[in-house]
Amino acid sequence: MISIHLEAGRVEVQEVAKPERPDGFALIRLLTGGICNTDLELQRGYYGFSGTPGHEFVGEVVAADTAALVGKRVVGEINLACTECSWCRRGLGRHCPHRTVLGIVRHPGAFREFLTLPERNLHVVPDSIPAEIAVFTEPLAAACRILEQVKIPQRSAVAVLGDGKLGLLVAQVLQASGCQVHEFGRHAEKLRISEKSGVITQLVGDALPEAEYGWVVDATGSAEGLRAAIRMVEPCGTVVMKSTVHGAVELDTAPVIVNEITLVGSRCGRFEPALDLLERGAVDVGSMISESMGLSKAAEAFEMAAKKGVLKVILRGEG
Amino acid sequence: MISIHLEAGRVEVQEVAKPERPDGFALIRLLTGGICNTDLELQRGYYGFSGTPGHEFVGEVVAADTAALVGKRVVGEINLACTECSWCRRGLGRHCPHRTVLGIVRHPGAFREFLTLPERNLHVVPDSIPAEIAVFTEPLAAACRILEQVKIPQRSAVAVLGDGKLGLLVAQVLQASGCQVHEFGRHAEKLRISEKSGVITQLVGDALPEAEYGWVVDATGSAEGLRAAIRMVEPCGTVVMKSTVHGAVELDTAPVIVNEITLVGSRCGRFEPALDLLERGAVDVGSMISESMGLSKAAEAFEMAAKKGVLKVILRGEG
Repeated sequence: MISIHLEAGRVEVQEVAKPERPDGFALIRLLTGGICNTDLELQRGYYGFSGTPGHEFVGEVVAADTAALVGKRVVGEINLACTECSWCRRGLGRHCPHRTVLGIVRHPGAFREFLTLPERNLHVVPDSIPAEIAVFTEPLAAACRILEQVKIPQRSAVAVLGDGKLGLLVAQVLQASGCQVHEFGRHAEKLRISEKSGVITQLVGDALPEAEYGWVVDATGSAEGLRAAIRMVEPCGTVVMKSTVHGAVELDTAPVIVNEITLVGSRCGRFEPALDLLERGAVDVGSMISESMGLSKAAEAFEMAAKKGVLKVILRGEG
Repeated sequence: MISIHLEAGRVEVQEVAKPERPDGFALIRLLTGGICNTDLELQRGYYGFSGTPGHEFVGEVVAADTAALVGKRVVGEINLACTECSWCRRGLGRHCPHRTVLGIVRHPGAFREFLTLPERNLHVVPDSIPAEIAVFTEPLAAACRILEQVKIPQRSAVAVLGDGKLGLLVAQVLQASGCQVHEFGRHAEKLRISEKSGVITQLVGDALPEAEYGWVVDATGSAEGLRAAIRMVEPCGTVVMKSTVHGAVELDTAPVIVNEITLVGSRCGRFEPALDLLERGAVDVGSMISESMGLSKAAEAFEMAAKKGVLKVILRGEG
């Protein structure tokens, strides 16, 4: 079978053996995979990664302990938790200190013809959701995570900074949850996607509002974005840090303390609310697909995904 | 009357006119004042301050609209809010954008024989609390503020970083509230003060615990302290940022996001819980007094307050 291998910035298609299926795991044939900014960062060598990347996928179960799963289309939570530590026992396997992470930490990723994941990580995809839509489940779950962490009253004005893939998902999720989202970005054509769901958008010019929002989500991936979020939030307000910034960020802590701002780090989320939003058609992810290519074209796909103006690039399984 | 004047790092005793008392204000004769690290930062010129410093004080009301206040010993909340904006109407005058701040922002401070403050800012000091103890009300209220912002279950282990004045107050307040506090500092003799109230203390060596506490309060005033707090907190845990750090702090945001840490900026608090703790003798602030000097010795007092190993230096009114 073919598998994508990432090493020292190079994306290669390799012929490898089909993986063994351990007990409790499912063997899954890739249908669609999504290239995420994290994959591009792995390619840039930020985390010393080498191996098979990919953590956004939809696949078909070809073998599993649970017979009812075989033949089903599934998506999978990316953290492989130990199930036994105190974090796992409290239902916080996403923070299990012994975890591996699909395509990121010591578990081969999804950009290969066949992958394996524990059955408990899998969620069956409703028939009504096409595979190129369901592949957004993982990043959409990350956007939904905000709603578990921060209670935002209905109709509150919330600012979302960034109009990349994550920013557009966050804006739509918060808007669908009953907030009035104001999204700030640099690309009119990207902002049009969230506008369709009622988000008020603004191209970033010189002057951003100051101390104006009770909640600001930074999805820019830039140090300047995080600093802007801190300026834009009201006293006693909350900044959600949704995207990591590579390297050290220079922050003036005085306004955080003087204005008693809360900063909340936010990462992965549960898949159920994301699948629900997709099934109800409550968010438009289809408009975010810039390109769809076969798995064997992965090198080209990574190159395209890194281009300015490009949103989601999807890899199709070869089956 | 005499008044302390701070300018370009120099502390001078000046003879000035007694202040006028505006309507709604009380005229207050200084009994005791406390030198805070913020005063030392004003002296170092961090905020371009010039004028009379001092925001920790106990005084006797000599004139007021409310006759019942006259002759009473009082402490005073330091934020002079406009009372009319949306922040003030929501009871958040401490964040009023139009506020002045006693001895910090456009209102002459307490280090003078007579000062003025709005009557609504004043709290009568119970007779049982001596003036050199009641002068800790303001910083103690700042420590109590944490309990309003962060809900910590009884008997939780909480780490406090720093054994300066604020760290010792925070450790004692959290211990008195039912937490088991672990305080980390560099001075055995300072840590002994909080040990007396049951706080477990540890001199900072090379190895600090990692990902071990659900709650960590940084009261070090240093960038390294804040970075250590982020390393010491568990996933999904909370770091309270209690002391500002001068200048930009270099932070790696990845662990904040990956471990979904919450950072909470914390500043001033309500005086009621602080006065209650002092009245009940629930915190030992007396041991934190390093020196007490007359107001006319303010230059010497500031010099002493800045010395390593010195805790609170108190200025006594001249009356």
